[in-house]
Amino acid sequence: MSNKGYKLYEKAKKIIPNGNMLLSKRPENFLPDFWPNYFQSTSGCNVTDLDGNSYIDVSLMGVGTNILGYSHKEVDESVLSAIKKGVSSTLNCPEEVQLSEKLLDMNSWADMVRLARTGGELNAIAIRLARAATGKDKVLISGYHGWHDWYLSTNILDKSNLNQHLLEGLNPKGVPSALSGTSIPFEHNNLDQFKKLISENDDIAAVKMEVQRNFEPSLNFLNEVRKICTEKNIVLIFDECTSGFREAFGGIFNKFKVFPDIALFSKALGNGYSICACVGKKSVMSEAKNTFISSTFWTERIGPSAAISTLNVMEQEKSWKIISAQGKKVKEFWKNIFSRNSVNAEISGLDPLPRFQLKIPHHNKIKTLITYLMMKKGFLATDAIYICTKHDDETLQKYYNEFESVFDEIKDVIDDEDKFKKYDIKEAFKGFQRLN
Amino acid sequence: MSNKGYKLYEKAKKIIPNGNMLLSKRPENFLPDFWPNYFQSTSGCNVTDLDGNSYIDVSLMGVGTNILGYSHKEVDESVLSAIKKGVSSTLNCPEEVQLSEKLLDMNSWADMVRLARTGGELNAIAIRLARAATGKDKVLISGYHGWHDWYLSTNILDKSNLNQHLLEGLNPKGVPSALSGTSIPFEHNNLDQFKKLISENDDIAAVKMEVQRNFEPSLNFLNEVRKICTEKNIVLIFDECTSGFREAFGGIFNKFKVFPDIALFSKALGNGYSICACVGKKSVMSEAKNTFISSTFWTERIGPSAAISTLNVMEQEKSWKIISAQGKKVKEFWKNIFSRNSVNAEISGLDPLPRFQLKIPHHNKIKTLITYLMMKKGFLATDAIYICTKHDDETLQKYYNEFESVFDEIKDVIDDEDKFKKYDIKEAFKGFQRLN
Repeated sequence: MSNKGYKLYEKAKKIIPNGNMLLSKRPENFLPDFWPNYFQSTSGCNVTDLDGNSYIDVSLMGVGTNILGYSHKEVDESVLSAIKKGVSSTLNCPEEVQLSEKLLDMNSWADMVRLARTGGELNAIAIRLARAATGKDKVLISGYHGWHDWYLSTNILDKSNLNQHLLEGLNPKGVPSALSGTSIPFEHNNLDQFKKLISENDDIAAVKMEVQRNFEPSLNFLNEVRKICTEKNIVLIFDECTSGFREAFGGIFNKFKVFPDIALFSKALGNGYSICACVGKKSVMSEAKNTFISSTFWTERIGPSAAISTLNVMEQEKSWKIISAQGKKVKEFWKNIFSRNSVNAEISGLDPLPRFQLKIPHHNKIKTLITYLMMKKGFLATDAIYICTKHDDETLQKYYNEFESVFDEIKDVIDDEDKFKKYDIKEAFKGFQRLN
Repeated sequence: MSNKGYKLYEKAKKIIPNGNMLLSKRPENFLPDFWPNYFQSTSGCNVTDLDGNSYIDVSLMGVGTNILGYSHKEVDESVLSAIKKGVSSTLNCPEEVQLSEKLLDMNSWADMVRLARTGGELNAIAIRLARAATGKDKVLISGYHGWHDWYLSTNILDKSNLNQHLLEGLNPKGVPSALSGTSIPFEHNNLDQFKKLISENDDIAAVKMEVQRNFEPSLNFLNEVRKICTEKNIVLIFDECTSGFREAFGGIFNKFKVFPDIALFSKALGNGYSICACVGKKSVMSEAKNTFISSTFWTERIGPSAAISTLNVMEQEKSWKIISAQGKKVKEFWKNIFSRNSVNAEISGLDPLPRFQLKIPHHNKIKTLITYLMMKKGFLATDAIYICTKHDDETLQKYYNEFESVFDEIKDVIDDEDKFKKYDIKEAFKGFQRLN
C-alpha cells in the first residue's frame, strides 16, 4: 500500500476537481483507497509508487500509450536529444515535417497531415475540417471520441445516447443546447440502422467511428459505410486513437483494407509522449487553409521527435505482431481458467487489448477483488490489459501463476456476492460515476 | 539565408495544410521566401537555423513561450529528470498536484486547478465549466481566445466581429451554424457597450477577456465588469495566456487587484514546454465533476515538471521585473529613433511585450523590410518583441545599433512606398491571409 500516494491523492481531491486529469487514471476506477495512485518511476512494464513499492503493470499501460513499454531507451534518447537542441523557438521544428512524411509513407491513401497534442482536440480538428469541406454540420458517431462539445452534444437529447460507446452516463452539462441533435450515435456493425440514419438526415458532414474496439466489424459493414460516405459527400473519419498500432503498423483499418478520408492517431504514437496526428486526403485536409486551426504548443519539438523514434522502433520490431501474439495467449489463458472453473465469461477486445467480463451480476466486485489481491502480489491488474512489447512470456507466466492463485481464493465470492464483504475494500467505480 | 529551411518548407506546404501548426510561426507572416523557417538549435535568445546560421531573436521568442530564454538550464534539467524517471504510466504523476498547489499559492483568490496542454483547449475547458456552473450558454468575449468552435462562432453572423481581437478576417468555416450568436464580442475598456450587451442578453454564462494586451484598461472598467458579473451570476474569466507572467508573478490582473472566477495561464508557464492551467474558484471548478473533461495526454509528466521549475526560477529572478524594465528601454529607444527621424509612430503593448506601428499606410512593407535587413545582420526582428530575461543591455545595444543603421537605410522607403520595389522581396502577410 502506498501511504504517500494515498495522502497526496487526499490533497489532490481538494484542489483538483475529480482529483486528476483523466477519468481512466482515477484511482476509484481501480481500487478506492488502496490503489497506489501516483508513480515515482517506470521501466519496461514496471511501475514504482511513491513509497518505493514496485509493480508489474498488466493493466492499462498508461491507458494505451506505451506499446513499447515504459521509459523506452531509444524513444527517450530522441527526446533528450531534442531537449539538448531546444524544444521551442520563433521558428518551426523540422521534425514536424519529417513526422508528417513518415505518416504519409505509412498511409498511401492520404495526402496531408496536421499534428496536435491531445486526442480530444485532435477529434475536434477532424470535425472542423469535415464540416468546412462539406458545408454541412451533422455528425454520425460510433465509439469514444473525447470530451469536446461536438461529441458530448450527442447526450443532450438523451443522456444514454453514448452508453454503448465506451463510457456510460456521460453528462453533457455545460455543452450549449444549440448543439442538440448535431451528433447522432449509431451502433457498431449495424448496417440497417446506419442506412436508416443516412436516409433520415441529408445534412451529414462526417461519419466518425472506431473501426474496432471490442468486436470485429463485418467487412461488408465497413465497405458499405465507405461507399455510402463517398456517394453522399460525407467525410469518413476513422478514430484510431485507441486501435492504432495494435494490430497493424498504423490504423486497424489496414486489416480490412477499407480506407477513410481522415484517420486519427494518438495514444501510442509517441510511446507516452504527448503527440497525435490527423492524417487525411487533400480534399478535406486543405480546408485548414480556409478555417482557423492553430495552437502554440502544437509546434513544440518533443512530440514529433518521440513519434518519429516510436514509429522507427515499431517498424523494426514489428511491435503489432508481438503484442497481438502475446494478447492471444492471455485470452487463451483466461478462457482456460474460466472454463476449468466453470465460470461463464466473455472474452473480447482486440488481441493486443484483451478484456474479460464474467457473466455474473457482480463482475465489478470480482474485478475489484482481483485488482486488490493482485496488487498485494506486486501486480497492477484489472479486467483488461493493454499489451506492450515488454509483456514477454516470462512476465505473462508470473501473471498467470498469481492470477490462478487469486482466482482460487475468490471462487467463493464468484459464487456468493455477499462474501465480498469479508474483504475490507470498496467496490471500484464504474464509468463516469461521480466522485464526491 | 537558409536554403535547407526554404526547401523543407516547400515540402511542408505540400503535406501540411498551411505549412505548419501555428499561424504566428508561419514564415510568410515575417518574410516570404527568406525567413529561415526552421531551427536546428537554441540557447539564451539565440536561434540557429538548419544551415547553421545563428540569429539573435528580438522577435517573438517562441511566440511568447520563453520568458526565461531558450534552453533554460534549470528548466531543462527538471524535464530531463522527469524523463529519467518516466513520463507516463497507468498511475498519475505527483507533479500535477505539486504544480496545482504552487499555482494556488500564487492565486489566493482561487481554490482549484485543472491542467491541459494547449491554450485553445484550455479556453474550451473554462467555457464548459462556466456554462455548467451557470446553466446558461452565451459568452461575451474580448481578446484572442484560440481556434475552437465556441470562440470562432463569434464570426458566423459577421466575419469582422473578431477583427478588433488580435486577428483580422478569421474565417469560421466549419463551425456549426447552430452556434451562431452564442459568442458576442465587446470592446476592451468600453464600459457603456459592455453594459448595453449585458442588459440585452439575460443568458450570459461567461465574460472572457484579456485584461490587457496593447492598451491598459481603466481600473473603473475592470471593477465594473467584476461587479456586474457577480451580480448577474456570470463567470468572469481572465485569459492570461499571453499576458501572464509578463508584468507580475502570475496574472496581469494582480497589477489591478481585480480578480476573476477563472484565470487561464499558458504560453510562458513551462518556458517552452507545453503546459497550461485553468485556475479558479471552487464554485465553478467543481463543475468538472458534473460534466466530462478528461484527456490522456493531460497526465504526462513533462508539462508540470517544466512548469514547477519555471515558476521557481521566475520567482527567484523576479523575471517579470527584469523583462518589464528591459521592455521599457526598448520602447524608449523606438520613441527616440522615430522622433529623431520625425516619423510618426504608435508605441504600445505591455512593457515586456512592446510593439510599434508607423503611422503610414505602408507600415507592413517597412516592417517586412526591417525583418529582411535585420536578418542579414543576424537578428530575427519584426515590429514587436516578446522580451525575455536574456535580452540584457548588451544584447539590446547590439539590436539598437543595427536597427539604427537599418532605419537610416530605409528612410527613403518610409517617405516613398514605391522605393520598396528596389528590394527584391515580397511583403509579409497580415493576420489570417490565406496561403496559396
